[in-house]
Amino acid sequence: MAALTIRPARPGDWPAIWNLMEPIVRAGETYCWDTGTTAEQARQLWLEPAPAVVFVAEKDGRVAGTAQLHPNKSGNGSHVANASFMTAAEFSGQGVARSLGKYVLAEAARRGYRSMQFNAVVETNTRAVGLWQSLGFSILATVPDAFRHPVEGLTGLHIMYRTLDAGGNERMET
Amino acid sequence: MAALTIRPARPGDWPAIWNLMEPIVRAGETYCWDTGTTAEQARQLWLEPAPAVVFVAEKDGRVAGTAQLHPNKSGNGSHVANASFMTAAEFSGQGVARSLGKYVLAEAARRGYRSMQFNAVVETNTRAVGLWQSLGFSILATVPDAFRHPVEGLTGLHIMYRTLDAGGNERMET
Repeated sequence: MAALTIRPARPGDWPAIWNLMEPIVRAGETYCWDTGTTAEQARQLWLEPAPAVVFVAEKDGRVAGTAQLHPNKSGNGSHVANASFMTAAEFSGQGVARSLGKYVLAEAARRGYRSMQFNAVVETNTRAVGLWQSLGFSILATVPDAFRHPVEGLTGLHIMYRTLDAGGNERMET
Repeated sequence: MAALTIRPARPGDWPAIWNLMEPIVRAGETYCWDTGTTAEQARQLWLEPAPAVVFVAEKDGRVAGTAQLHPNKSGNGSHVANASFMTAAEFSGQGVARSLGKYVLAEAARRGYRSMQFNAVVETNTRAVGLWQSLGFSILATVPDAFRHPVEGLTGLHIMYRTLDAGGNERMET
């Protein structure tokens, strides 16, 4: 398998990022985004201004996945990170999300975040839930019936959480 | 005591709303807002476009409190409401927040929301926690050390939740 390279996104990456995001957004099965979100709206939601940062995972010169890292809250809550991840369907099952997850955890620690919180992991997305648990997250709570899954119907949204080691020791695990 | 009137905010209410919000934002003890938030930034955060809606509570012709109601998430999570509340210091202890809370719960049900979720109730803000519990909310989880209280130090953020009765029966309780 070709090596995976993870790096901060550049403005020129946007078309490739949107290309992988669009089917995920349109499906509406894993993200609380309007399924009619336009490319321009998505660009504003994903490529937020600093301190937010976006990464891409490249394989064979193509964008296989992308992640967004930003404070979960502003002001006196800004030491808790939040992150979002999307993997291109054609790179599914190749460890892209796991590699991006480890990378982003290390980046978050390096940037001084003390913990990471996910606000809305869809309960039926068991692959994502299992991935995050294997990377040290626990389910703090499940908001009942908070997501209208287009196939499964009403399901819960997990709030997931883990602390981060100052100094970025998470990077060593990768 | 003069009667409390609760109604949707009008554009002309903004100066009075900001007047009560500013000391709360500057104190940084109860909201995850940057304590340096400008009036214009606050206006954009509070007076969001529809489907968000803002209410004011008037007493003696003055704005005693304000509340914001909007979807907690977009897309397939938009049936869960989120709301925020601020009371003017000089009207504290007069039931303004409780009246606004009941009103907003009824409005949320009337607008078709199925439940209401608060994402960040500061653990040391025991008065707010008690108010929401008395209005039917439970603490789903507490994110540990997620808030840097300027006086109390690191404290938790409660995620609070309750379901809503379709048809707005909550209004009957007021």
